Amino acid sequence: MTGQYKGPSRRSDVAPFLAMDVLSAANALEAAGRRILHMEVGEPGAATPRAVREAAIAALQGGRVGYTDALGWRPLRERIARHYGERHGVEVDPGRVAVTTGSSGGFNLAFLAAFDAGDRVAIASPGYPAYANILRALDLEVVELRTRTEDRHAITPALVEAAHREKPLAGLIVASPANPTGTMMTPVALAKLIRTSDALGIRFISDEIYHGLVYDGVAETALATSNEAIVINSFSKYYCMTGWRIGWMILPPSLVRAVERLGQNLYISAPDLSQKAALAAFDATDELERIKDGYAANRKLLLERLPGLGFDDFFPVDGAFYIYASVRRFTNDSAEFARRMLNEAGIAATPGMDFDRSQGDAYIRFSFAGSVTDIDEASQRLGDWLR
Amino acid sequence: MTGQYKGPSRRSDVAPFLAMDVLSAANALEAAGRRILHMEVGEPGAATPRAVREAAIAALQGGRVGYTDALGWRPLRERIARHYGERHGVEVDPGRVAVTTGSSGGFNLAFLAAFDAGDRVAIASPGYPAYANILRALDLEVVELRTRTEDRHAITPALVEAAHREKPLAGLIVASPANPTGTMMTPVALAKLIRTSDALGIRFISDEIYHGLVYDGVAETALATSNEAIVINSFSKYYCMTGWRIGWMILPPSLVRAVERLGQNLYISAPDLSQKAALAAFDATDELERIKDGYAANRKLLLERLPGLGFDDFFPVDGAFYIYASVRRFTNDSAEFARRMLNEAGIAATPGMDFDRSQGDAYIRFSFAGSVTDIDEASQRLGDWLR
Repeated sequence: MTGQYKGPSRRSDVAPFLAMDVLSAANALEAAGRRILHMEVGEPGAATPRAVREAAIAALQGGRVGYTDALGWRPLRERIARHYGERHGVEVDPGRVAVTTGSSGGFNLAFLAAFDAGDRVAIASPGYPAYANILRALDLEVVELRTRTEDRHAITPALVEAAHREKPLAGLIVASPANPTGTMMTPVALAKLIRTSDALGIRFISDEIYHGLVYDGVAETALATSNEAIVINSFSKYYCMTGWRIGWMILPPSLVRAVERLGQNLYISAPDLSQKAALAAFDATDELERIKDGYAANRKLLLERLPGLGFDDFFPVDGAFYIYASVRRFTNDSAEFARRMLNEAGIAATPGMDFDRSQGDAYIRFSFAGSVTDIDEASQRLGDWLR
Repeated sequence: MTGQYKGPSRRSDVAPFLAMDVLSAANALEAAGRRILHMEVGEPGAATPRAVREAAIAALQGGRVGYTDALGWRPLRERIARHYGERHGVEVDPGRVAVTTGSSGGFNLAFLAAFDAGDRVAIASPGYPAYANILRALDLEVVELRTRTEDRHAITPALVEAAHREKPLAGLIVASPANPTGTMMTPVALAKLIRTSDALGIRFISDEIYHGLVYDGVAETALATSNEAIVINSFSKYYCMTGWRIGWMILPPSLVRAVERLGQNLYISAPDLSQKAALAAFDATDELERIKDGYAANRKLLLERLPGLGFDDFFPVDGAFYIYASVRRFTNDSAEFARRMLNEAGIAATPGMDFDRSQGDAYIRFSFAGSVTDIDEASQRLGDWLR
């Protein structure tokens, strides 16, 4: 005898992360023997640097893989703090560093530590879909700020002030370089936006996971402007450690203990082996810069060839490894376009609906984090298929 | 200029997980050169089995460590499903298996998928503190059911019915073997409780993370009784993989897609390397059974010696690796007792307040998952210190 079960919760009724659904479909085709070119997930095609893998092997041979402190393994927290001095000339107390289970873990902890159910948090549209989906699952109100071409697709102080006047915002999330567009804010524009946010008491969350992957311009950290910002970063992108699920946050001192308590309960700790391995990532610069050179070559190739194939309308590709291109010329339904492209041309890419619920059906995101050979082959297959 | 910042959220004002705070203090003493005997965290003292570590090394040498499907790497999902046939004679569709970032990830996803803000979820008191703390962080109402000695500290159908009459329950979480007590429910009592829960439409969440660690009795899976139960399990305890952050859930078919969507957004996927390694854990039985024999020896030693030291009142130690003992004879403040024991005797243990906010100050939890030598030394140090 079974009673009246409530089905899935309302809060779980978030959008699927289509990039992951495409990955799943692509994996299934591959398992069936097809050769698929992966341009769907924001994931480096290159292996994790050798030195990082060797550090993990050494830790494994040492034997013990256990829980660490909830805020992370101390040597890694110290190394991350030092990184800000080296890269940005900003001093960071290691006590403000929280090692997280990917930037995903960072977002979850940051949102829970800083906001209460019903709080309003602003994000850019188009933008990374998990922001909105995590916020909604945690009963937070998502305020989408539509960015404009004339602002180079960045959130402006005026947009924030207008939304805040309507009803106070508790938080604002900004990524530079951004996903899915690859566009960046100048250090001056970023600092101005953070100061606006600070002045209004809106918690600024700076998603800096694409730092290190910049082709045009300079990526500045929010910490250069404010210690009230929450900075989120990751070893997934520049450091090629996606599957290790390891990232970090720099927290305002007032939020450290809240994040520690939540982390103890929700995660216990980030994966130990990934923490040991990540320490070596800061010294793998030669290998990582070679990988980045590959992205730069891919970017050049696509910027040259895509317009000739009919993709002549895309956002400025300043950083990250994405091209967010209009497919209006081909279709009004980029999800169907992506499905056919996967099945017929064996190219996996992510439909824009993932990033923009209202205008995304006119866009598709290509990730160019794969090998130069793959990107070359993809552009050729794409040409053949469109013909 | 900085505006009026809201401090930490109300929802982040959960209790710290004291076991993790004790671990942090113990680690600090160790870093300063003290030899500390760890009986605070529920973590095997033994290294991860050799075959598991070798599988991870092979995967590392293979190169790529990337995202997997959000529900997990298919071969691992299939192997987990098969495990239920082998161990319990229960058939499980691999499509119902979700690989999670530890059981912590499982609890978080299960609560979000099954419950909405304000829903009432019942747990046992004393019990695992993260249940209540995660539930509260997610704006769920925690209903603590105080268990009784005459019921061997298990939740009974009568307790559930009474709480449900008061105001409907949406969920019920039960662990057998339990933490912090180590007590177990008989298969008959468990089945009865699940049928009560099913009849009332209360989602039954069965925490089976201590399965495999049973000294007295039989641990049955909830799946033997109901396909509406959410079963949560982990590679941390029996399989000695704490720091790998890897676990799994078996889901009712109606919740699979909700968990997949939430997992895509909140976790992307569980750590890839841990998934590859975990596949080998099912074949490490010889090594794992030897480790379990060590726990059995520790249990025997402590059950013999603790009463003579004044710890003569504890819960039945049927499974897991905990002794939950009264310290009433020594103190009314088990947190202070634990602090002094750590600083003066170098023994780390967890005060009962972690597990029971109203009566925990009279209890302490000893984990006996360490080596036989350590447990022997701990019992001697304890005797010297108490004298």
